[in-house]
Amino acid sequence: MSTIKKLFATTLTASVLFCSVTFPGMPGPAEAAQDTYGRSHNVIMMIPDGTNVEAVTTTRWMTDSKALTMDSMLTGMVRTNNANTPIADSAPAGTAMSTGQKTESPFIATYPTKAGMPGAETMDESRAMAPLATVLEGAKRAGKSTGIISTSNIQHATPADFSSHHPNRNAYEDLGEQQVYQKMDVVLGAGSHYLTAENRADKEDLIKEIKDQGYTYVTTPAEMASAGNGPLWGMFAGKSMAYDIDRDPAKEPSLAEMTQKALDLLSQNDKGFFLMVEGSEVDWAAHANDPVGVVSDLLAFDKAVAVAKDFADRHGNTTIIIAADHGTGGMTFGERAISKGYDKAPLESFTKYIKNAKLTGQGVALRLNADRSNIDAVMNEAYGLNDLTNEERQLIRDAKDVQGAVGKVISDRSHIGWTTNGHVGGDVALYCYTSSPEAKLLTGLVFNHEIGLYMADLLDLDLVALSKDLYVPVRDAFADTGATITFDNSRPANPEVIVTKDKKTIIFPISKNYAIIDGKRVELDGLTVFNTQKTYVPASAAKLLG
Amino acid sequence: MSTIKKLFATTLTASVLFCSVTFPGMPGPAEAAQDTYGRSHNVIMMIPDGTNVEAVTTTRWMTDSKALTMDSMLTGMVRTNNANTPIADSAPAGTAMSTGQKTESPFIATYPTKAGMPGAETMDESRAMAPLATVLEGAKRAGKSTGIISTSNIQHATPADFSSHHPNRNAYEDLGEQQVYQKMDVVLGAGSHYLTAENRADKEDLIKEIKDQGYTYVTTPAEMASAGNGPLWGMFAGKSMAYDIDRDPAKEPSLAEMTQKALDLLSQNDKGFFLMVEGSEVDWAAHANDPVGVVSDLLAFDKAVAVAKDFADRHGNTTIIIAADHGTGGMTFGERAISKGYDKAPLESFTKYIKNAKLTGQGVALRLNADRSNIDAVMNEAYGLNDLTNEERQLIRDAKDVQGAVGKVISDRSHIGWTTNGHVGGDVALYCYTSSPEAKLLTGLVFNHEIGLYMADLLDLDLVALSKDLYVPVRDAFADTGATITFDNSRPANPEVIVTKDKKTIIFPISKNYAIIDGKRVELDGLTVFNTQKTYVPASAAKLLG
Repeated sequence: MSTIKKLFATTLTASVLFCSVTFPGMPGPAEAAQDTYGRSHNVIMMIPDGTNVEAVTTTRWMTDSKALTMDSMLTGMVRTNNANTPIADSAPAGTAMSTGQKTESPFIATYPTKAGMPGAETMDESRAMAPLATVLEGAKRAGKSTGIISTSNIQHATPADFSSHHPNRNAYEDLGEQQVYQKMDVVLGAGSHYLTAENRADKEDLIKEIKDQGYTYVTTPAEMASAGNGPLWGMFAGKSMAYDIDRDPAKEPSLAEMTQKALDLLSQNDKGFFLMVEGSEVDWAAHANDPVGVVSDLLAFDKAVAVAKDFADRHGNTTIIIAADHGTGGMTFGERAISKGYDKAPLESFTKYIKNAKLTGQGVALRLNADRSNIDAVMNEAYGLNDLTNEERQLIRDAKDVQGAVGKVISDRSHIGWTTNGHVGGDVALYCYTSSPEAKLLTGLVFNHEIGLYMADLLDLDLVALSKDLYVPVRDAFADTGATITFDNSRPANPEVIVTKDKKTIIFPISKNYAIIDGKRVELDGLTVFNTQKTYVPASAAKLLG
Repeated sequence: MSTIKKLFATTLTASVLFCSVTFPGMPGPAEAAQDTYGRSHNVIMMIPDGTNVEAVTTTRWMTDSKALTMDSMLTGMVRTNNANTPIADSAPAGTAMSTGQKTESPFIATYPTKAGMPGAETMDESRAMAPLATVLEGAKRAGKSTGIISTSNIQHATPADFSSHHPNRNAYEDLGEQQVYQKMDVVLGAGSHYLTAENRADKEDLIKEIKDQGYTYVTTPAEMASAGNGPLWGMFAGKSMAYDIDRDPAKEPSLAEMTQKALDLLSQNDKGFFLMVEGSEVDWAAHANDPVGVVSDLLAFDKAVAVAKDFADRHGNTTIIIAADHGTGGMTFGERAISKGYDKAPLESFTKYIKNAKLTGQGVALRLNADRSNIDAVMNEAYGLNDLTNEERQLIRDAKDVQGAVGKVISDRSHIGWTTNGHVGGDVALYCYTSSPEAKLLTGLVFNHEIGLYMADLLDLDLVALSKDLYVPVRDAFADTGATITFDNSRPANPEVIVTKDKKTIIFPISKNYAIIDGKRVELDGLTVFNTQKTYVPASAAKLLG
C-alpha cells in the first residue's frame, strides 16, 4: 500500500469511530474510547481564535486564489459550548481542547464546578477546581518536545490552557510563572511584560530565570532566525504582537515564521513533539468588528497552516488539527444594506477596501495624530479610500474605540455584517490532516473536548490518570506521613506551602516546579499549583520526606 | 464484511476522491471525475432552504436532546457562490445541486451567460441560456421513479430547479406547467393557485390535466394517507403551506409525513428512485428575521431527515445528501446586547421564548384582530410572554411586516442576532449518509455543483450528454430537414413552435411534453422549453417528420 493510500485509509476508520463517539445516546467523554485513532509521532494543534464560519468564507474571498490552505483539510465541525453554558469563552474552550474535559468560564485547564451541558452532562464533584493535565504536559512526560506559539501574550487564555492552570484566566502572573517552569522547548509570542520584575507583584525576574534555565531568549526576528538548537524563548512584544498587516517585519516575526522555527527545533527530538499554534488576534479584531483585522490575521494563520502542512508532508508521521475555540462578532458576508440585490452584487463590492488594505483599524488608530486631523490621509493610505463622508469622518474623530469606528466604516462599505462585540455560539469548522501512517482523522460533528481526547489518543496519553498523578492536593499527598502542612501567605504575591516533619522542612513555592530543602532547589516532576483554595503538588513530592 | 462495515468502508474512498476534486488547482467541473463515488439505487436530496450554520446550532439548542438527526450525518461544508457573484440565490444554488453546473441568478436549471467565480471559472458560450438536464430528469430516463416535495409552492425556485427550466425564477406559470408534463411520480406541497385556469394567463386547467394523466390528486392529509399506489399529486395550499408550528394538521401534512408517503410510493419501483425534499420556509422565516419560524421549520425538516434515514436503514442502497442552498438572515446565537457576559449566560436565556413557542411571527400576524388590540393576548398565547413593553407593543402595532416585528421582539429577548433581511455568503453544512454498499460519501469542503455531480455519479447519469439530447434548439433539431419553422406568438400566454414541411405540420406547445400532429397529441420524450429567446425540443422530435 502506498503512503498516500495508507494516509487516506485512515480516514475510513476515523469516520467509523467518530460515529461511535458522537451519535446521540452514545457514551459521553468519560467513556470515550481510547486507542481508537491510532498513533501520531508529532501533533500540531492550530487555533484561529474567534473564527466563525463566515470569517473563513470572507477571508477566502480576499485571496487571489479564492481558496485557503485550510480549505483542503476540512473534515467536520465543532460544538463549542462550555460545561455549563452554551456560548464559549477561550479559557474553557481551550481547556476542552487541551485536556479533553469541558469546563466553565474563566477556568484555565481546571476542572469545572458546574456542568450539565452536552459533552459535560455530569461531573465528578471530588475533582471540582482541580488542575487538569494537558496534552502538552502529557507529551512532555512521554519524552516528546513541546512548544506554544501565540501572537497574544503567551499568558492569554488559549496558550495558557495548554501550559498552566488557574480558575481565573486573568491571573497572568501565575499563569506566566507556571509556563516558565513547564520546561517547554519552544515558546514564541508576546508577553515579556508579565515576566519582568518591575511589573510583577512578586518582583521576580522571570526573564533572568528563563535564561538561567538555558533558553536562548530572543526578542527580534533576526535573533530568532539565528538561534541554534536547544530551548528557545522568544518575546517579540510586551503585551501583544501587531496584527499581521500592521506588523514591522524587522521587529516581529510572522506566525508562519514562528511556526517554521518551532518545527525546525522541535523536530530534532526523535521521540516527536507537540506544538500549539494560536492565531490569537482574529478574535480581537472580531470583538472590534474590524474586518481587515480578521482577514489580516486569518490569512497569517493560514500561512502558518501551510508551513505545518508542508512539514507534515516532508517529515511524515505528523497530524495537524485545526479548530477555532468559538466564533466572535457574528461576522457575515453580506448585511442589511444589501437585503435586496445580494445575489447580483459582484465580488468587487465586498473586496474593494479589504483585499488590498494596508492597515487594520488598530493600525489606523496608531497613525492618527493627536487631534485626529489626518483621518482622511490615513484612511486613504490604509484603504485607498479618498471619499470619506462627513459622517464617516466624524465617527472616527469622535470614537473612543478607533478600531471599531474604522471597522464600521470598512464593514459598511464592504457589506460585512456583525451581530455583537462578544462571542457567538455557532458551530465552527474542524480541519484535520495527517501524514501518520497509523493515525486516523477526526471527522464529522464533534465536541471541542473530543479534540483533546483525539490528541491524547494519538499521543497515547491517559490525561485523567496524569491529572491524578501530577496534581494531588498537598494534604492528600502527605496524608500518610504525619507531616504538618502550612500555607504561608505572609508574602501574598509569592505564597508557599511548608511541609514539616521531625526536623525536615520542605518549601513548595506556588507556580514553580521545584521544592526548597535546606535552601536548595529540588526539582519536581511537575508544578505546584494553587487554585485559590487548595494547593496541588505532584504525587511524587511525598518522596521528598525520605 | 458486515453491512455496517461495508457502509463505512465507503467513507474512505469518498475522502480520497473528494480530495482529487476540490484541492485548489485541480480540474474544474467539466473535468470532474465520473464513476468516482460508486452507485446508489435510491438518492434522496434534502434542502433546508436558507439555513446558515448558526440556524442549525440555534435549533439544536431548542430540542430536549440538544441534538438533531442531521448532526450525526455531517461530513463537510459547502461553498455556495453563483457562477458570477459570491452570494447565492435559491435559483442558481438549486440549479448547481440539481444539474452539477453553477449558474447565475435568477436562472432555473438553465446554463449561465456569465461565469468567473470559483467552480465556474470558465463557460461554454454556445450553451448560454440552454436548459440543463437535472438529476431528476436523468433518473426518470434511467427508469427510476421521481418526486419533489416542498412546503412552498412547488413552482418556487428550489423544487423548480429539479423539474423545470427558465431564466426567470418568477415564471411560475411556465415552471408549473413544465412540472405537470414531467411525468414525476410524486409531487407534494403547495402551489395549486398557479395550476388553476382562473389564475393562469393561458387559462389552462392544469389540475384537470394532472388528473387526466392518472395522478391521484389530493388536498388534505387524510386524502394523502389513503392514496394507493400510482402517481400522486398533493396540493395542500394555494401558494404556501403554513410554518410547521402554525400548521393545522387536519389541513396540511407535515414535511415528515409527506416524505414518508413519497418514500412508500417511490420505493415500489424496483429500479429505484430520486426524491428531492425541501424545507422551504426556513428561508422565509430567516428573511423576516423570525427565529421561531426558523426553528419551527428546521425542526420539521430534521424530522423529515429522520424519516429518510429510517428508510435508508430499513431498505438499504439509499443515499441521503443534505445541504442548504445558502444562508439567510445572518442569524447568530448571541448578539450585541450580550457583548459582555455571553460565556456566563445560561441556556434558558436563549431558549425561554423560542423553545416552547406556539406560533411563528406569521402565526401571530394571522391571530391579530383588525385594530391589533389583542397584541398582548396573542403574544402571551404564542410565547408565554406576559410582560410586553410599550415599545415592543408599539413596534408590533405599527409594523407593516408583523412577522418581522414579532421576530425582533423574540430575537432581542432571546439574544439571537441577525445581520440582514437577505442572504449571506458563508459556507453551509454538508450532510451525507448512505446505506448503499457501493456508494461513497461526499465529504470535506465542496462546491454546491459538486453535489449535483455526486448525485449524477451515484445514479450513473451523464447530465451534459442528457442536456444535449433533451434540449436541442428547434432550428438545429430540424436543420437538415428543410422544414420551415415559425414561432407563433399570437397567443402570448401560450406560444407554439410550428414546424412545416411539404404538407406535414407539427405544433410544439411551449412547456409541454407533446407535439400536435393532425390535431392529435404525440408524446415527446421530454419538454419543449422556451427560454425567452430560443425554443428547445428533444433531439428525437426530428423523427416526427417521418
